Amino acid sequence: MLSFKERAISLLKKADVKINGDRPWDIQVYNDKLYERTLLGGTIAFGEAYMDGWWSAEKLDQFFAKILGAYLDEELKSPILLFYYLKSALFNPQTEKKAFKVGEVHYDIGNDLYSKMLDKRMVYTCGYWDGFQDIPPASNLDEAQENKLEIICRKIGLKKGDNVLDIGCGWGSFIRYAAEKYQANCVGISVSKKQVDYGNKSKGDLSIEYRLQDYRDIDEKFDHIVSVGMFEHVGYKNYKTYMEVVNKNLKDDGLFLLHTIGCNISTTATDPWINKYIFPNSMLPSAAQISKSVENLFVIEDWHNFGINYDHTLMSWYNNFKKYWPDIKGHYNERFYKMWEFYLLSSAATFRIRRNQVWQIVLSKHGIKDGYKRIV
Amino acid sequence: MLSFKERAISLLKKADVKINGDRPWDIQVYNDKLYERTLLGGTIAFGEAYMDGWWSAEKLDQFFAKILGAYLDEELKSPILLFYYLKSALFNPQTEKKAFKVGEVHYDIGNDLYSKMLDKRMVYTCGYWDGFQDIPPASNLDEAQENKLEIICRKIGLKKGDNVLDIGCGWGSFIRYAAEKYQANCVGISVSKKQVDYGNKSKGDLSIEYRLQDYRDIDEKFDHIVSVGMFEHVGYKNYKTYMEVVNKNLKDDGLFLLHTIGCNISTTATDPWINKYIFPNSMLPSAAQISKSVENLFVIEDWHNFGINYDHTLMSWYNNFKKYWPDIKGHYNERFYKMWEFYLLSSAATFRIRRNQVWQIVLSKHGIKDGYKRIV
Repeated sequence: MLSFKERAISLLKKADVKINGDRPWDIQVYNDKLYERTLLGGTIAFGEAYMDGWWSAEKLDQFFAKILGAYLDEELKSPILLFYYLKSALFNPQTEKKAFKVGEVHYDIGNDLYSKMLDKRMVYTCGYWDGFQDIPPASNLDEAQENKLEIICRKIGLKKGDNVLDIGCGWGSFIRYAAEKYQANCVGISVSKKQVDYGNKSKGDLSIEYRLQDYRDIDEKFDHIVSVGMFEHVGYKNYKTYMEVVNKNLKDDGLFLLHTIGCNISTTATDPWINKYIFPNSMLPSAAQISKSVENLFVIEDWHNFGINYDHTLMSWYNNFKKYWPDIKGHYNERFYKMWEFYLLSSAATFRIRRNQVWQIVLSKHGIKDGYKRIV
Repeated sequence: MLSFKERAISLLKKADVKINGDRPWDIQVYNDKLYERTLLGGTIAFGEAYMDGWWSAEKLDQFFAKILGAYLDEELKSPILLFYYLKSALFNPQTEKKAFKVGEVHYDIGNDLYSKMLDKRMVYTCGYWDGFQDIPPASNLDEAQENKLEIICRKIGLKKGDNVLDIGCGWGSFIRYAAEKYQANCVGISVSKKQVDYGNKSKGDLSIEYRLQDYRDIDEKFDHIVSVGMFEHVGYKNYKTYMEVVNKNLKDDGLFLLHTIGCNISTTATDPWINKYIFPNSMLPSAAQISKSVENLFVIEDWHNFGINYDHTLMSWYNNFKKYWPDIKGHYNERFYKMWEFYLLSSAATFRIRRNQVWQIVLSKHGIKDGYKRIV
């Protein structure tokens, strides 16, 4: 029978990764118990071992691109993962009561971290780096995020005075932009108290309103609705409810723009390491799950995939995080640094190897009368 | 209890249609047995009554837009429709043996009809009327079909010498275009003997090959694969097989462009009148059904909806059909005329009211390395 190390060597070989090799994507192992810990404990153990300093790689993003491209994570499916799938099947981890948890765990960990890592508008979703219409390609993160905000406004045909709802508004980057540039009246809802406090303190004279609210509690009529990077927290058991809520709150001739990370295949649970350390109760939707959830509610007007942009965006965030770490490290510890590095760089790799996508989907209630025209 | 006529009046009222009214979309009834025949027999009886001359409307397309927009067909679901759903659930009407039936019934009814009704390239799918990149909007059917063929070539990034497969090639409009304009080497397969005979007789020196072949029998490797208006004949039980066949026959870095009519909701059977008279064993796929069928096989690179273009295309076909009817009527009869009119104009209405869509979906096997760039 093969030893744990021999099994690890054999698995890593499939991904062209060598233990203690000299290429940027090779793994450097500092504790030989890593093999047993990972092979028995799965991806969560592997991530925790990284946080404990048991291993590293010169270019961690390239290492992840190799091992995720070879689907080694699928071979590490452990009893722990089975537990997550079972839990997801038996319970609804994204009930209204539980929905605020990710707000506390992830988005409230400190605005100083996000203000250093993100662009000047604090946009915590994938940027858009390509040019479109009269807008040139972005040459830095600030521009990529403005391009993304602009493309959303144009895709929904935003006009002065329109009433717009943003479900999961983050620090308000979209509602601020839409109010500033288009004189729209915007409502943003969030489950993070720190985001809402930050937003209400800094909104100035803009016609925007921040609310600490669950999407299931909205009962109004908006000209347009957008949701940018929030659907990942909804959970597959709630997709239909979510779409019903949007349908109910959207005027008959309005547009709904859904911006979300997507997964090539339908699943019902997330990676256990991500679930524990980064996004509790999150889950990436598939195209099949989204399409099914909009039946009898919406016409799919457009489906834009620009997932490769998230590789660039996450690498920009990582570079900022590394650069400004000395300024903020007083609030965190080295284990947090490693955790955050693992999160950003493994995520970047999933988009680079095209296992995950970024979708902007434009939906209408009854179909735009003369057809929807794509602007990019 | 309401009489059949009273029930008909009440149903038609929901759609703003009057019996023997004077608006272009009002129905003119010539036989009072129409109400009983339709309410007991469903949509198939209603269509047959039209073919029998029992009713008409000044603008039949507008009449259909009204009644289909009000979903009156859903209220006419008869025991016959239930039979079709059951048949579809119990059998596979699109097995290889049965797949050639639509070739005989629909596509072999006479090239004189199609050559009069269609554009000069004999393209029997939705045209593209908008402009894109350097191509101006189309001002007639010939241009709309050339725009559509050109957009497909650009979406797959077609280059000189590429080997391309067209699944369901019709009279060969795409493979001829790709060979003429891009010097591609093309294979087209069809289940219509008349289409293949026509193609092989007229191909001249072009590097194209027509085959009378079922898609399940292809076993080669192509740079790119397209399928334009054929997926509607595949049947939901065969979607996965179809995608597996495409995946197997496509090179690793190639693109597959699927052009198909789509339905807003998932169904497992088609309208019984359409099934009996126009497209035996056809079925419109939903986005959910397609997305599910490509899981573990393809990355969805782009999903373009331009369904409103089929309203314009079908109205152009209808106008040609009406104009040239005197030239071809010797081969058909008046009942056929009414059947064809019913088919073209009810179809146009389904796109105008946005119940049906036209999708071009670009798929890659492993994701395009630096992301897929939309050209429109």
